Amino acid sequence: LDSSSILADRTKQINASAIREILKAASRPGMISLAGGVPAPDSFPIEVIRKLSNKILDTYGASALQYDLTEGFPPLRTALSGYLANKEIFAEPDDILVTSGSQGALDSIGKILISPGDGVAVEAPTYLGAIQAFNPYEPKYIRLDSDDSGLIPSSLEKALSSHRVKFVYLVPNFQNPTGRTIPLERRRKIASIIIRHDVLLVEDDPYGDLRYQGSPIPGIKTMAPHHVIYISSLSKVFAPGLRIGFCLAPQFIRKWFVAAKQGVDLHTSTFNQALAAEYISGSYLSQTLPKIIRMYQPRCKTMLDALDQYFPEGFHWSRPDGGMFIWVEGPTGFDMQNVYRESLKNKVAFVPGKYFYTAKGKGLETMRLNFTMATKEELDSSVKTISEIIKDRMQVGTH
Amino acid sequence: LDSSSILADRTKQINASAIREILKAASRPGMISLAGGVPAPDSFPIEVIRKLSNKILDTYGASALQYDLTEGFPPLRTALSGYLANKEIFAEPDDILVTSGSQGALDSIGKILISPGDGVAVEAPTYLGAIQAFNPYEPKYIRLDSDDSGLIPSSLEKALSSHRVKFVYLVPNFQNPTGRTIPLERRRKIASIIIRHDVLLVEDDPYGDLRYQGSPIPGIKTMAPHHVIYISSLSKVFAPGLRIGFCLAPQFIRKWFVAAKQGVDLHTSTFNQALAAEYISGSYLSQTLPKIIRMYQPRCKTMLDALDQYFPEGFHWSRPDGGMFIWVEGPTGFDMQNVYRESLKNKVAFVPGKYFYTAKGKGLETMRLNFTMATKEELDSSVKTISEIIKDRMQVGTH
Repeated sequence: LDSSSILADRTKQINASAIREILKAASRPGMISLAGGVPAPDSFPIEVIRKLSNKILDTYGASALQYDLTEGFPPLRTALSGYLANKEIFAEPDDILVTSGSQGALDSIGKILISPGDGVAVEAPTYLGAIQAFNPYEPKYIRLDSDDSGLIPSSLEKALSSHRVKFVYLVPNFQNPTGRTIPLERRRKIASIIIRHDVLLVEDDPYGDLRYQGSPIPGIKTMAPHHVIYISSLSKVFAPGLRIGFCLAPQFIRKWFVAAKQGVDLHTSTFNQALAAEYISGSYLSQTLPKIIRMYQPRCKTMLDALDQYFPEGFHWSRPDGGMFIWVEGPTGFDMQNVYRESLKNKVAFVPGKYFYTAKGKGLETMRLNFTMATKEELDSSVKTISEIIKDRMQVGTH
Repeated sequence: LDSSSILADRTKQINASAIREILKAASRPGMISLAGGVPAPDSFPIEVIRKLSNKILDTYGASALQYDLTEGFPPLRTALSGYLANKEIFAEPDDILVTSGSQGALDSIGKILISPGDGVAVEAPTYLGAIQAFNPYEPKYIRLDSDDSGLIPSSLEKALSSHRVKFVYLVPNFQNPTGRTIPLERRRKIASIIIRHDVLLVEDDPYGDLRYQGSPIPGIKTMAPHHVIYISSLSKVFAPGLRIGFCLAPQFIRKWFVAAKQGVDLHTSTFNQALAAEYISGSYLSQTLPKIIRMYQPRCKTMLDALDQYFPEGFHWSRPDGGMFIWVEGPTGFDMQNVYRESLKNKVAFVPGKYFYTAKGKGLETMRLNFTMATKEELDSSVKTISEIIKDRMQVGTH
């Protein structure tokens, strides 16, 4: 038996995340990591979880440990209905499907919608986890252009006019990897374009609650409810290790979504859904979120200040209003992979931006910097370290 | 937008479990359910879980709530290595992959191995959850014959000689739905056949620990380690709501399995894996298992006694040494669906056996009876109720 003869055809599309090795390197002792997309461990409400674990065993007893509905644990769906109403997304509990992280939602969406060769329109760069979820279903990617304000609506219009597109995938708030947010006026244009072309949009919103300045912008879901699958996750505002995501899909695909998820994991952990239900309905989320924001906001500012202070001319970066990432673009032809290698030797890890493109050879001059996992002092010193490596490489003319 | 134009081609293979509606009916108040495959709620160690929830927050702190490796939480993989050694399956912690229930293992196996049209050999009848996991990947099923001792080796030999088979799927211990167990001599023959044909076997073993009489029989994994993917779950011996399964795959497909799982859910709940690790390594599993067996063993005997006492001639049933199910076969031409409908009206639910066949029109005369969820009194009275309905139908000649 060998893998060449036994693997399915689709399996050649399945790759372990290319940044797994980078994240492993980033977790070495002594390393300052700007590489992950991981919440700060001190943001986790350990004592609240201790209290709620006891409470759900008292309240739900054996039901918290038993098999449950594929659609989700009813008290969590009720809690999420209230949570979403605060975002002006009005959904009955029955409309909401709980998933095993937003990754679980992305997998089921790919499974029920993508036939081999179907067009899926994505921003370039885009979220790597979505690509990993979709790839086994063998889509053809149509790349959309974006600028400092995210997706450019005319690029979407052009893509939908010239390609058959099964769905569009977007992260409108504090995008991973760029940190960019699509402004209200563009969202309205995007909603009108997808309605006119009668095409589905997957709006992925894991970071929307992590806003450090400015006012929340309504989701595209509120503007085109029948054309948008809204997905999100509690991983960035509660605890990623519990693997709780959720999905609000138009009625006509919901039963297929549930059937697909049933074949994948039967249902998401009942115990963890009960924890999440109590976390939201007991107002722990609304009380804890401001603390998380007060933790991340100054880290974002410190990193931006350090970039302003240390980085050379010819480099530009996003100025996110929230989320976890800053995106840096060097001059055309600059190779960030070399900076990455040198940076690791200096105990600073980040992710070269090329990994977030579906096309090879794109984004060689870019990098993604995370600011949630390091202290202000570490953020300042690590950005300085990277800037010195960049300056060295520019002097020796290796770009 | 409508579902007919937007769904992937594969989605027509995806159906919500046909027995979902049956299980819903079975959960109505006042119903005696012989329908599910669900552990008794009073088998769950609620106070142990309370203690361990507190302990893992003390021991692992934020790590129990953080993102973790796709392969699994290291302390659980270590604990499972010891657990498997008791079954004479010798595996390093690194060889063991944790999954979101055994359903998660079945999905990843289907995803990385099955190209549309590939042959997958299954017992008839077989476990419905495996069919649901494999169907979206569009296999062609090759049906294997079985008798009271499970899979008939010559049927496997014939199938492998006359079809191209990607893998064989078997539940050798207390099979779902039949309760049958494959004896040692047949296992040796099966191992030798799959080695000779150089074909993979998926050995699914969720019930092996629930043995009420006789001695454990070594897994086929121990006889053909390089040709067997062994999968199991803690759902039947700990708590299904935690969704913890695991998989021991030959080295050459392991990295593909991990890459596929990464796209599906990134990883299984860290918190629940930590609970499972402590449950096993703290000897709670080995202490609790005898209590669960003492709970189920008399229920199995009560159901068998009731079948002996009440059921008419021409009906036969399995006499399982463990697990959760008894399989009843009526005379050819008898329609168990009618009995099911009448039985529901009399507040007794079971699953007609036809749902466990991949071919239509098979198993119309069969039924699956579960004995773990009802009391001895309920088991006796509900089997009596069903027997009376059967006798009525035989008299009116509706078969």
